[in-house]
Amino acid sequence: MIILLKRNVERSKVDELLRRIHAMNVQTQEVHGVQESIIGLIGDTSAIDPEDFKSIDIVAKVKRIQEPYKKANRKFHPDDTIIDVCGRKIGGGHFQVIAGPCSVESREQMISVADSVKASGAGLMRGGAFKPRTSPYAFQGLREEGLQLLLEAKKHSGMPIVTEIMDKSHLPLFDDVDIIQVGARNMQNFELLKALGKVNKPILLKRGLSSTLDELIMSAEYIMAGGNENIIFCERGIRTFETATRNTLDLSAIPILKQRTHLPVIVDPSHAAGIRSLVEPLSMAAIAVGADGLIIEVHNDPAHALCDGAQSLTPDSFDETMQKVKKTVEFFGKTMD
Amino acid sequence: MIILLKRNVERSKVDELLRRIHAMNVQTQEVHGVQESIIGLIGDTSAIDPEDFKSIDIVAKVKRIQEPYKKANRKFHPDDTIIDVCGRKIGGGHFQVIAGPCSVESREQMISVADSVKASGAGLMRGGAFKPRTSPYAFQGLREEGLQLLLEAKKHSGMPIVTEIMDKSHLPLFDDVDIIQVGARNMQNFELLKALGKVNKPILLKRGLSSTLDELIMSAEYIMAGGNENIIFCERGIRTFETATRNTLDLSAIPILKQRTHLPVIVDPSHAAGIRSLVEPLSMAAIAVGADGLIIEVHNDPAHALCDGAQSLTPDSFDETMQKVKKTVEFFGKTMD
Amino acid sequence: MIILLKRNVERSKVDELLRRIHAMNVQTQEVHGVQESIIGLIGDTSAIDPEDFKSIDIVAKVKRIQEPYKKANRKFHPDDTIIDVCGRKIGGGHFQVIAGPCSVESREQMISVADSVKASGAGLMRGGAFKPRTSPYAFQGLREEGLQLLLEAKKHSGMPIVTEIMDKSHLPLFDDVDIIQVGARNMQNFELLKALGKVNKPILLKRGLSSTLDELIMSAEYIMAGGNENIIFCERGIRTFETATRNTLDLSAIPILKQRTHLPVIVDPSHAAGIRSLVEPLSMAAIAVGADGLIIEVHNDPAHALCDGAQSLTPDSFDETMQKVKKTVEFFGKTMD
Amino acid sequence: MIILLKRNVERSKVDELLRRIHAMNVQTQEVHGVQESIIGLIGDTSAIDPEDFKSIDIVAKVKRIQEPYKKANRKFHPDDTIIDVCGRKIGGGHFQVIAGPCSVESREQMISVADSVKASGAGLMRGGAFKPRTSPYAFQGLREEGLQLLLEAKKHSGMPIVTEIMDKSHLPLFDDVDIIQVGARNMQNFELLKALGKVNKPILLKRGLSSTLDELIMSAEYIMAGGNENIIFCERGIRTFETATRNTLDLSAIPILKQRTHLPVIVDPSHAAGIRSLVEPLSMAAIAVGADGLIIEVHNDPAHALCDGAQSLTPDSFDETMQKVKKTVEFFGKTMD
Repeated sequence: MIILLKRNVERSKVDELLRRIHAMNVQTQEVHGVQESIIGLIGDTSAIDPEDFKSIDIVAKVKRIQEPYKKANRKFHPDDTIIDVCGRKIGGGHFQVIAGPCSVESREQMISVADSVKASGAGLMRGGAFKPRTSPYAFQGLREEGLQLLLEAKKHSGMPIVTEIMDKSHLPLFDDVDIIQVGARNMQNFELLKALGKVNKPILLKRGLSSTLDELIMSAEYIMAGGNENIIFCERGIRTFETATRNTLDLSAIPILKQRTHLPVIVDPSHAAGIRSLVEPLSMAAIAVGADGLIIEVHNDPAHALCDGAQSLTPDSFDETMQKVKKTVEFFGKTMD
Repeated sequence: MIILLKRNVERSKVDELLRRIHAMNVQTQEVHGVQESIIGLIGDTSAIDPEDFKSIDIVAKVKRIQEPYKKANRKFHPDDTIIDVCGRKIGGGHFQVIAGPCSVESREQMISVADSVKASGAGLMRGGAFKPRTSPYAFQGLREEGLQLLLEAKKHSGMPIVTEIMDKSHLPLFDDVDIIQVGARNMQNFELLKALGKVNKPILLKRGLSSTLDELIMSAEYIMAGGNENIIFCERGIRTFETATRNTLDLSAIPILKQRTHLPVIVDPSHAAGIRSLVEPLSMAAIAVGADGLIIEVHNDPAHALCDGAQSLTPDSFDETMQKVKKTVEFFGKTMD
Repeated sequence: MIILLKRNVERSKVDELLRRIHAMNVQTQEVHGVQESIIGLIGDTSAIDPEDFKSIDIVAKVKRIQEPYKKANRKFHPDDTIIDVCGRKIGGGHFQVIAGPCSVESREQMISVADSVKASGAGLMRGGAFKPRTSPYAFQGLREEGLQLLLEAKKHSGMPIVTEIMDKSHLPLFDDVDIIQVGARNMQNFELLKALGKVNKPILLKRGLSSTLDELIMSAEYIMAGGNENIIFCERGIRTFETATRNTLDLSAIPILKQRTHLPVIVDPSHAAGIRSLVEPLSMAAIAVGADGLIIEVHNDPAHALCDGAQSLTPDSFDETMQKVKKTVEFFGKTMD
Repeated sequence: MIILLKRNVERSKVDELLRRIHAMNVQTQEVHGVQESIIGLIGDTSAIDPEDFKSIDIVAKVKRIQEPYKKANRKFHPDDTIIDVCGRKIGGGHFQVIAGPCSVESREQMISVADSVKASGAGLMRGGAFKPRTSPYAFQGLREEGLQLLLEAKKHSGMPIVTEIMDKSHLPLFDDVDIIQVGARNMQNFELLKALGKVNKPILLKRGLSSTLDELIMSAEYIMAGGNENIIFCERGIRTFETATRNTLDLSAIPILKQRTHLPVIVDPSHAAGIRSLVEPLSMAAIAVGADGLIIEVHNDPAHALCDGAQSLTPDSFDETMQKVKKTVEFFGKTMD
């Protein structure tokens, strides 16, 4: 961290600032230019918020140099983390497709979709039991009953399941879930993240609608700081001025996250675009840019889906897309096992 | 709601769509143009998500015409809602200033700040006990102990207190809090909103960093649908590309919210700008644009604040600002009682 | 400017970098920490682009410390610039209202609007002769003929006129225009800015839809570097995700621009909101936050305006707003002379 | 276009509105619901701005249904446009790579880069002679001299050249240029677009930093309305809140532009990311998502480049990337001829 001082400040005030910094167990080094003086902070500054210094009257600017994350940082863990979910591997050259409906609606639906996405080559199944909806009057998911139907589909198909948690008080219900998803709106629900740090299960952490990549990594750091290092990032589009797509899929996020951290990253083309016809081209692009997996909405009857039908593939169109996904994953040197 | 059909669609498919709409207890009316056909939905469409229709192959576009909110809607409640907190009124011509530190740090701090902001004319006191922080390594607030210190400051000063809740499981701790604040990151924590719908206390609902005004209103609707209609909106800046300020304060939000709803709206100039010198001019602008109150950070020693010192006023500068606030509120025809 | 070096770099490469920097007539100072080394650049770095150093393999980060603008910088010109247009002063405590239609449409319209806005207290008149329109099929303005009608209205009313230029080749047509406006879409039309640097007339420089304040200041610097230091900034809203208003008016821009530069700043509430009912509250907020003027659309018949009728005031509603503007300007200590 | 009327409006006002619409040579159809009435406009509404109706007091909302572009619209030109530049084809299954330095700096540089990018498989050469720079003090390009050096490199290598125009007055200098580039900052320089409509040359139209896809298409429509239908779109990143990359590359734009128009679309990964290490993964993603080409910055000595060195590839790293580009283009079924 670098602190730039204002011009012509009193020495006594600089000394007081230095004492304050040293009290944080951080060393300092001063540089005095013709017009400017700089204090460099040397040591572990991850617990220091640069904002803390901005209120001091002799300080002009504060710049963080080192990344504020440790456990997620690739510098300290150069090898890719590989998440193993019941034998399905994600990361480190292993690619997985997670498929299923936006909402769990009925036993027949789940069994039917499970059979078809498994046949098409999906490795894991998704389905929403607790649904975050903008309106209190919209369908809120089948909740506990939905989780039961998901677990039945898991038993039937043998596919591990991924589903979203909306509140830490629901955690006991998620005992048999294989991957717990944190949705975009809860990416900075810090009490939930702390609770997930105590869980021994992979967490699929979706990027918030207006979260920077550094904030996303810090949310992973919250979970990891609690002891659970099994994090999978999910890029699902950010909110911008463009209205042609529901969100703007930020595929640059994938190489950036992989440079900065050792964690796997998957892409959700269905929610990003909100348009069925974009799911396949964005899936191809996600594989090409280096993603470790895809999460795709598939519904046996999109026209009658209780939410997000507009972006759901039918089992048939998912099957066609999967033929291309398999070839493309292989072309780019990854394996789907 | 209006559904625009694609060109040259089969009549049987249109009939099927009409049956499906009628099953939602909504009437329809068709218009057939030379090239386009439109179905108008007549009745209460608040439980219908326009996305539900976009997946149907004969549908080209869907547009919502009526607002999806009822309880917050000014159309059905033309009079301003006035929130009364221990005799301090907010809304309907009544203006309040809420002041205090970002974080509760110590008894001395709270007593000292309470005395000074009360003397300067603040009507309510704020202070964070549970603190949402981007980094797990940063100070997380004094939590339960912080709430106790707030309640002591309330007892000492007689000022009602406002503080943030971060998880619905903490609700029992908030029994003696006067206004419960929902922070920007939790604006769409729907499980929390539902729980607050069962509480008999005013809720200060802050706008999310990338939330539209309609989403903010829908979050109020979540709380109101549960039975608690005491909502105060808070505009605190949105996330944009501009980096000169921490967030971009959207003052147009105040007249828009007041046109669309009957609820009071206050402004947080401290968090919006993140810069001490902008707190006063933005406070003046907030009063001028029609806000019903301000929430301002005041710290007895900003240079040693444990968070957000850069935007905190000292008691002295807050006092100067309050002299202008009082005159300006009066100039614009509101009362601070 | 500060250059942070990567860890463990070869001394010979650092020396080569130092030689390269010295060749730019800039001094350097080195700081060596335990893990990091920093080179501080001392001197005039305004012609240096920080990007230039980012491609060098030993460089980790580059941060600019000093502002890259000189002529606009308040540090070097502490006093407010006051622009005098035929006796109407803008800046330094002087406030002006510029009013008129979006587009010049006819002689009758211009004379009628000129008479009414003058009577209401506007100091200058605006009107678009060259109109930037998103569609090539939309009305493009009366162009040369429109300029003539503006000049007739000026002759008739005695009010100085403000109108937009869209291409530097049109400059000869603007000889009798009093203030030349650069629209948001041309804020970074650098060839136009350079040409305006050679003109001896005030320039009203509107902020681009997605321009940072520093970019806006640099565009002023383009004009000032050419010799024309008569710049008036105009905040007119930025593009964000919010769709309730056409743009998001960024009123924090006013105190920021005034802290960083010595130039006057006015606000365009009409284009920012795109909604008639927001013009008055946003005008009040603009005065309160410290703006030096307003530019407001007024049309004698908004329902038949050839563009932007939705945001135009009628002469009557403008007159009502002006009564409040005058009192509010006085309340905040400025004069309209 | 659909006009939604307010409730309980007078019949005489509706009739007046209908007369006004009919005067625009557009037919109407009315629908009367229980609470709402709608007027549908039938016919060519491309010259009508929906804003025009918003100022009318009986109008509640106006929604455009049909796209406002005609010449660019795929509905009326179902086949892909193929641009042929001296035998290099772009679009309709043909893929081209345009490579070269950000700025033209010297004859040696241009000959050297031309030789190497041609050997690596680039089909066209780029280089900036007129450079848009944020600061007036930064290098502005070699201008006319730069164009000469580009033309020499063309003569030497046989590769067609692409270079940016910044003002319509420079057009005569571009007679021997093969593709004229309109930069992001000039995407809505409508006077320039009109001038380019009279030119018989392909135009590479870059998306503005905060332009929607519909605005980009309308800018193409400006050129096409003038008679020049040879447009190539270029997605080069949009401005968002994320700072990890210089801009956010919006790859969803490619399938959307291809659905809505018949024009080819290329991608500029160098400017989008501003980071050398992202050029290759984003190039792969661009091919996978369906782009018709790439424009990549290559500099023989990025560390000494006069602008944008941080994102330039060296000839060697470009050669490596091109080996992958060729295989990937072939894998996705396009040809580079």
